[in-house]
Amino acid sequence: MENIKSAGLIIIGNEILSGRTLDKNTQNIATKLGVIGVQLTEVRIIPDVIDTIIDTVRHFSSRFDYVFTTGGIGPTHDDKTAEAVAKAFNVDLIKHPDAYTALVNHYGGEEHMNDGRVKMTYVPAGASLIDNPVSIAPGFKIENVHVMAGVPKIMDGMLGNIIPTLEGGDIIKSKQIVINKAESEISGILQDLENQFEGVDIGSYPKYKDGVPEVTVIFRGTDEGVLDTILEKFKHLLIPSP
Amino acid sequence: MENIKSAGLIIIGNEILSGRTLDKNTQNIATKLGVIGVQLTEVRIIPDVIDTIIDTVRHFSSRFDYVFTTGGIGPTHDDKTAEAVAKAFNVDLIKHPDAYTALVNHYGGEEHMNDGRVKMTYVPAGASLIDNPVSIAPGFKIENVHVMAGVPKIMDGMLGNIIPTLEGGDIIKSKQIVINKAESEISGILQDLENQFEGVDIGSYPKYKDGVPEVTVIFRGTDEGVLDTILEKFKHLLIPSP
Repeated sequence: MENIKSAGLIIIGNEILSGRTLDKNTQNIATKLGVIGVQLTEVRIIPDVIDTIIDTVRHFSSRFDYVFTTGGIGPTHDDKTAEAVAKAFNVDLIKHPDAYTALVNHYGGEEHMNDGRVKMTYVPAGASLIDNPVSIAPGFKIENVHVMAGVPKIMDGMLGNIIPTLEGGDIIKSKQIVINKAESEISGILQDLENQFEGVDIGSYPKYKDGVPEVTVIFRGTDEGVLDTILEKFKHLLIPSP
Repeated sequence: MENIKSAGLIIIGNEILSGRTLDKNTQNIATKLGVIGVQLTEVRIIPDVIDTIIDTVRHFSSRFDYVFTTGGIGPTHDDKTAEAVAKAFNVDLIKHPDAYTALVNHYGGEEHMNDGRVKMTYVPAGASLIDNPVSIAPGFKIENVHVMAGVPKIMDGMLGNIIPTLEGGDIIKSKQIVINKAESEISGILQDLENQFEGVDIGSYPKYKDGVPEVTVIFRGTDEGVLDTILEKFKHLLIPSP
């Protein structure tokens, strides 16, 4: 019986939706979760709108083993994630003493704590902090929801602190092969293999390299022996019969 | 009265969710829609699962003025988008004569039309084709849903054919300024401006350049004169009073 752990990712940020910023967090998170056997199942990119964040967090929290959010936890008026997550779980937003102490020390004394910096010490009641090794202001975890910064370097630091706390599932392994054919030339073979090997997910990804079509075929599954078998069978089927 | 046109984007692809591929289509689509006054409002990245595609297409089609999908229209078994979109609109999947003719010509005769190539000529009944200037196999449009390939180069070619057919809304203009301060030093100023200028969306995007914090502040809105005013006011407020 396979033990699959699922994750949903919520990217909160007008700057992604406007095209200003290319989101690189999804790929980083997907890859690092995959290594420990957690499958990223859906990603939503949504604007900095409180009600949209509340609805999405509630929906994802009930559907997936783990939920991650990026963005919207900075010091400014457009950072609405902490408030929205508190509302999603019907709890108050409270000043976390550890976060406050950390920021006071970081900024060199209480006299340097303006409204924006104080704002970053507020988390939903009952949340635990996620250390931020880059710029100190922490993320937080409440229920199965992990709230991280959007700046990739800071997000990566927080993710590094979260990953060891997660219970992984079966790890999805993969075998891949690149061949110089058009995808349409191998679709029949792939369909046959798909029918024969039920537990294997077969993906084919075409691209053009110097104008010549090539396709990467990837076999994914939890049983490495089966993946080796299907890869050998695929290579064999590529050789035209005499 | 502002005339806002909204768009939703559905990225269909296990390769994005596994972390194998970095999605660059979102940024390209967001940027090109923005130019004609269509605002990308939500993006969902979902797996190649028929029921998930059906639900997401129906939901987005009813919520947004325009819907775009990328991925899952190739020749192989894991390309399920056309079938799912047909089911989303309760119509049959039919072989489109123009698509068939185009592919027969492209591949050099009917004898070269294997199952995979024929599969790419099927679209939902009532759909119109979207020309593919790169690899010929077309995308299609049904109701307000535009179905495109996932390979960025092909997607971009199809998008180029779609954009002139869309009716845009008011164009969101932006003014930006980069300053060498931590975001937390200007959060109070931004809050004040946010309260004074209702139609302007103010975003602040921190990053580190050679270890030094800097922040880009962007003012967005439909009225360029108002954006100039708020930018001047912001610069003025940055200068500490004597």
